[in-house]
This record gives sequence, structure tokens and C-alpha cells, in this order.
Amino acid sequence: MDILFSDITLITMDDARPVLKHGYAGVEGGKISYVGDKAPAETAARVVSGSRRLLMPGLINSHSHLPMSLLRGYADDYRLQEWLFDHIFPAESKLDERCVAAGIRLGLSESIRFGIVSSTDMYFHLPQIAEAVIESGAKANITNPLLCLDMDKFDFEKDRGTVENRETLSRFKGKGDGRLVMDAGIHAEYTSGPAAWRKCAAFAAENNLRLQIHLSETQSEHEACIKKYGKTPAAILSENGVFSRKVTAAHCCWLSEGDMDILASAGATAAHCPVSNLKLSAGAAQVVKMQERGINVALGTDGACSNNNMDMFEEIKTAALLQKYLTKDPSALPAYEAIKLATVNGAIGQGREKETGKIAPGYDADMIMLNTDSPHLFPLYDPCSAVAYAARGSDVCMTMVQGKILYENGEYKTLDIEKIRREAEGYALARIRNEE
Amino acid sequence: MDILFSDITLITMDDARPVLKHGYAGVEGGKISYVGDKAPAETAARVVSGSRRLLMPGLINSHSHLPMSLLRGYADDYRLQEWLFDHIFPAESKLDERCVAAGIRLGLSESIRFGIVSSTDMYFHLPQIAEAVIESGAKANITNPLLCLDMDKFDFEKDRGTVENRETLSRFKGKGDGRLVMDAGIHAEYTSGPAAWRKCAAFAAENNLRLQIHLSETQSEHEACIKKYGKTPAAILSENGVFSRKVTAAHCCWLSEGDMDILASAGATAAHCPVSNLKLSAGAAQVVKMQERGINVALGTDGACSNNNMDMFEEIKTAALLQKYLTKDPSALPAYEAIKLATVNGAIGQGREKETGKIAPGYDADMIMLNTDSPHLFPLYDPCSAVAYAARGSDVCMTMVQGKILYENGEYKTLDIEKIRREAEGYALARIRNEE
Repeated sequence: MDILFSDITLITMDDARPVLKHGYAGVEGGKISYVGDKAPAETAARVVSGSRRLLMPGLINSHSHLPMSLLRGYADDYRLQEWLFDHIFPAESKLDERCVAAGIRLGLSESIRFGIVSSTDMYFHLPQIAEAVIESGAKANITNPLLCLDMDKFDFEKDRGTVENRETLSRFKGKGDGRLVMDAGIHAEYTSGPAAWRKCAAFAAENNLRLQIHLSETQSEHEACIKKYGKTPAAILSENGVFSRKVTAAHCCWLSEGDMDILASAGATAAHCPVSNLKLSAGAAQVVKMQERGINVALGTDGACSNNNMDMFEEIKTAALLQKYLTKDPSALPAYEAIKLATVNGAIGQGREKETGKIAPGYDADMIMLNTDSPHLFPLYDPCSAVAYAARGSDVCMTMVQGKILYENGEYKTLDIEKIRREAEGYALARIRNEE
Repeated sequence: MDILFSDITLITMDDARPVLKHGYAGVEGGKISYVGDKAPAETAARVVSGSRRLLMPGLINSHSHLPMSLLRGYADDYRLQEWLFDHIFPAESKLDERCVAAGIRLGLSESIRFGIVSSTDMYFHLPQIAEAVIESGAKANITNPLLCLDMDKFDFEKDRGTVENRETLSRFKGKGDGRLVMDAGIHAEYTSGPAAWRKCAAFAAENNLRLQIHLSETQSEHEACIKKYGKTPAAILSENGVFSRKVTAAHCCWLSEGDMDILASAGATAAHCPVSNLKLSAGAAQVVKMQERGINVALGTDGACSNNNMDMFEEIKTAALLQKYLTKDPSALPAYEAIKLATVNGAIGQGREKETGKIAPGYDADMIMLNTDSPHLFPLYDPCSAVAYAARGSDVCMTMVQGKILYENGEYKTLDIEKIRREAEGYALARIRNEE
């Protein structure tokens, strides 16, 4: 056995035995080889003491734009249209390959430090993103989504997203031990049209890809679609084959009951982004209702421009709080269920449900350890309550993916954090600022 | 000069110059002696480098029950009545003096570590609380509030709150350099009655005290009052003299417009507790509207049973997010205004507005320093955005009250954290658990 976590508070997210107060977890060859409440017979090369520590599955961020970390705090407290068109889009247009290479590493360093082991990410300069993911040791499902404001001039094969997706597919095929997964992507209903959606769905089918999309984030986009097509975004996208693929639909604030049925029967995942939705006044997704109708609901941070961090613990708490408020029922989305959104359900959304999101024998050793030796995590009556309502990303003291430690006690094992900062500050920020 | 913070990112909360990107702040004799964007001529006994650091006023928690930290995570995800009557009240009934002495120190250690310099706190065993506040070096306005479920048998002078308040007033008079302030208190409208309120208001007047109360937290309590008295809680309390004192009214989720006018004209402070209100499905206070009508709105964590931490950065962010959601306007309660709730406005609520909440010459040196050398706080385009939307209590690396450092880089200077844990675990938790 390579590593044994010994006598540790263990949240497995395995419904059979979700919490072990004095648990043991062993890692061998990148996989979880042992879980139990007794020490295994086998010895381990490294034994990690579980005293005042908590071990749980690594978190899955089901909707992000990691390179946007470069624009964290760049334009807050603006109305949505002003924010996007006057600030974010102009700044993004300055981001060249080298900027995105710096930004994705900045985003990954925050994610890994805060216990995220896998992200569903949507951004441009995709080959640079793929390279950084492989280097970092983290997992990600990535795409550069279809985005076209003038459908009359649209040529799917010449579209930047298609070109980058095809290039990334061929360049990185088989690389990264299964950590890197390519998705297809459509930015949103309102930024493309039916012909493009059909091509994209066919492209996804041809390459056996899942598909990412922003869906019914704001009321105005949802209603404009009904006005344009006489149908909701989910309905018109479905008619054009999009939901023939496994879809991760970000936001879903304004889904109708019919839309929920479309997502449920297609086995789609709704990536709920509560912090972003509140911050941009987009709305509030009906998580409890979506779950009742059979949709797999996962959780995402969205980009750092609308959050402004990648702390999935904050997202878990905000998700639980918001459902308790909306349903007027404080027992809605209880701690364990809220954590599920960020682990088990995230894994389903990425097609990794047999691989990650649980601490169970045979799963990849994608785990995080929290230091609970802090006044805000004491006493620890209920480990799930502590994780959902009191913990934060900064309590993570170890992040492990496929048995490899990526971060431990302030130290990054795969990323050069000073170099990332130099690239971000010296090159990317200078570029964003100089051309303002 | 005792201490100089040199070339530091400075949020002063002084509207004249709210942010200095390369600022200097000097401390002498417990007071802020210098603020500027140039180094002062005078030398300092200690110079703190501001490289990748941010200095701001210490945070003010305007509504807490610090000893409830002992019950953090004890009973989550229950409906309100079940939570309170089947779990919290029975557990609280087991808390003797020694438990509360441990609990208040646990609560203070978390508060200080997360950058809270002053709390408005309501709990029983008040002399033990006063002693711990003085020992800790922090500031607090404290009371044991009036609570009587059978008004027919009520005797104000024999009431436990009155006895403890009088004892604390006399025992701690003049102690703690002004850090400890006694308030009067009424638990809530629904846990007492008009005769008691009048006595309490008179007691407050006689001793020149401010007054703490829970007000219109839930819709059911608000409507039950209207049914009972034909008036809202604010109206009936006002009729009985309560608002003749400066009042800090916690929650205020269900204030009518008339109630808002009562609070505004009385110079009362509404202590908004967004995390607690969402977690217990109590509702959502209309902060923007209350401010428009002239109410001073501050911010509180409430107790650790309904939060479950004392992180005021989380409270700032949640407050801003919730107003953006409720008003459908992402420019509502922008970063600087949200931080004001937890600093300047909190100081007003405690009657300390000439003493704390700002970094300005002559104010007490109640300041906190954040370590911004972390991926989630980079880049730092706008320090207020970083504090309101990305920072968390764990970013605080120094907490100072009246020029005295209470916490720095993991070390407590006034509290014995291991002893606190031993007392909490060895005595208090054993007592709560054994008698279950």
C-alpha cells in the first residue's frame, strides 16, 4: 500500500456507510485499495495520521471558466449587459494564448488549493488549457463552445471552437491517464442557432463526446427564446438533437416543468451555480424540484468574474441555504445531500461516476484532507454539517488525484506558483491594463 | 510610534479616502496616529511590511451568541420549532457557568482569528462572559436578555437576566479600558410582555444602556404579534418605551414600512443576519429598502448553531448577494457598502462610532491585516471587491484591538487555545453528551 490514512474522520459519500468517525483509507497504484473502520493488515509506505483531520472525496466543479481568474474583481457590481459588453468581453478580447496559459494555471492553482479535483470548463485557446490540465495533475472535462452571433455567416468547420476542439482532440488523445476529457460545447441558445446545434450534436456523436451548454440562466434570455422560436431553450435545443448527447447544462434558473422533464429523460446534469446566479441577479434554480423530477443536479462556481473565487465549500453552503430559503423548509437540501452535489453528482455529470466522487475500493484516489484543528470546525458533532456549513476551501491541507498529491500544507507539487504569478502579473495583467 | 504598517493596501472606510493602494498607517498608545500615502517622518518600534498584505478596520459582529459555539453542528437541517424546542433549548439547559466560560472563549477565539474585533452578544451566565471578553482583549457589547414565557409570574427584579446584568454592571464597572460595554436586552416580543418591556426600558434609561432585541425574525412570530396586540412587534415595543433607547434589533426580516419608520426615527440599528436567516428559512431582510428609509443596517453571524461559523466575510458576501437577488439589480449593495455594514455601521450600532470601524487618526487601533498572497485573492484590481467577494476569515493574518495584537500568523496572544479546547471537550461537551 502506498499511503494509509489512519484513524481519520472519513466522509465516503458511499451511501452504504457515508461516515466513519474513526476510519482508515488506503491508496495503491493511484486507486483506493482499502476503506474500513479497522486498520488494514497490510503496511503502507506512508502513514498519514488522521488526528484532527477529515478525509473526503475531492470536489468536482461542474461549471467553470478557469482562465477568467485573470479578471477576478475586474468589474463587479455592474448590471448584466454593462458588465458583459462594456467590461468582460472587451477585456477577454485582449487575452492571447499566453494570457490564457497563465490564467488557466492561476485558476487551477486556486482550485487545487481549495480541494477541487475535477472541473467542467468552457473557454477558448483550448490546447493551452489541455496542456495546463495535464501538467497540473488535476482532472477536467473541457471544451471551447460554439459561439456565433451572426448565424448567416456561420460555417461549423471553420468556427474557432470546432477548430480548437478538433485540434485538442487529436493532439491530446490518450494523454493524461484519463484525467483530460474532451466535451463538445454550445455557449448558449441565444449565441447560435438550430443549424449549428445540429452540426455540434453530430460532431459530439461522431467523437462520442458529452456536451456543455449555458441554459436558461436569465429570465430575459429564456423569454426571448420563447418569443423567437415559440419554445423554451431546452425544448428548441432538444428538437435539434442537443439532448441526444449527455449534456451538462449550467445555471438552469428558469427551467419550466416541461424543460425539467426534457433534462431528466435525457440523463442531463444541471450545473447549479448559486453564487454566480445571485451575484448577477440571474435568479435561483429550483434544485429540490429538479431533483424531485429526476434531474442529476451538480454544482459549479462559474468564472471568477461572477463569484469571485473557486471555493466549492462556499458553493455547497450557498446551495443549501438558498433551497432552505426558497422552499421555506430548513430541512431542505440537508448537509449530506448538499455535499453530494459537489461530489457524486458532479462525477455523474462528467461521466466519471465509476471513477471519482466517492471513497470506495476501486475508485481513483481523488481525495482531499481537511485540517479540522481550528476553532470554526470545533466541536465536530457531525462531519457532514462541518463540511457543508462551517468549512471553507482554506481548510483543505491535502489534495490528491489518482493517488498523486498535488497540494499539501501550503506546497504545490505540480504547479510553480511563483512562475504562474509572474506570468499572470508580468504578461497577462500588463496586456489587459495597457490596452485599456 | 509603536507600529507602522508600511506600503500596504489600505481600506480605511473613511469616505474621504476609502482606499489607498500604497498606504501607511501608524499606531501609538493604542490609537491610530497616522494615515497617509507617504511614509511618516517619525520612526516606529516595529515596521510591518505591507507587501501582499491588506489592512482594514476590524470587523464588528452586530449579533451573536458566542457561547453557542459549543453547539456548532449539534442539530442542523431541522424545522425551526423542532430545532429550538427538541434540540437547542434542551442542550442549552445543560450549560452551567463553566460550560459558558469555555463556550465564550471558543467563540472569541474563532472571532478573533477571523478578524472580528467587537461583538454585540446576547447570552446567559453574563459575568463569565464579561470576564472572558476582558481577558481576550476584544471588544463586546453584552447582555443577558429578558426572557419569560409566563408573564403572570414575572418579577423584573428577580429575573435572571436582571440579576446577571446588575451583577455584571457593578463587578466590571470601569474595567477593560472601554472595551466591555453593558447593554440591556429583551430576548424578543414573543418571549415577554408589555410590563416587562417598560421595566427593561426604565432599567436601560437608569443605567444609560443601549438595548438588544430579536425583532420580526420569522413571519409566524410577526403575524402572531399582530393577532395578539393588533400591532406589529416594532409598534407594540415602541409603545412600551423600548425604542426610547438606542436599540440593536437583530434579523428584521418582516418589518413593515411603518416598522422601518419607527426604527429609523429612533436611531435604531437593524442587525442583518443573512446566513442564519436563510439557514433557518426565516426570511430575508430588505437591506436596501431599510437603508433607503434611513435605518442604520449592520451585520451579524448569529450563533454557531444557525450559521455555523463566525466568518463575517461570508456574511458580507451573502448580504450583498442576497440584496442583488432580491432587488434583481446586480449593482445593489456594492462591495464598499457591504463592507460598511460590518465596520462603520456596526460601530454605530454599538455606540462606538467615534472609536472604531474606520482607520482614521484618533480612532482606536482596531485593525486587521489580510494575507493576499493566495491564488483566490489574485489579481487585486479592486481591494473592496476582493474583501467582499473573494476573501474569507482565514485570510486574516493579524487582529489588533486598541493597538494590541490579539492574533498573528496562527498564534493567539491573549487566549490559550489548547486550554480552551480542553475545557470545551473535557468538560462542556462531556456534560452536553452525558446527559443526553
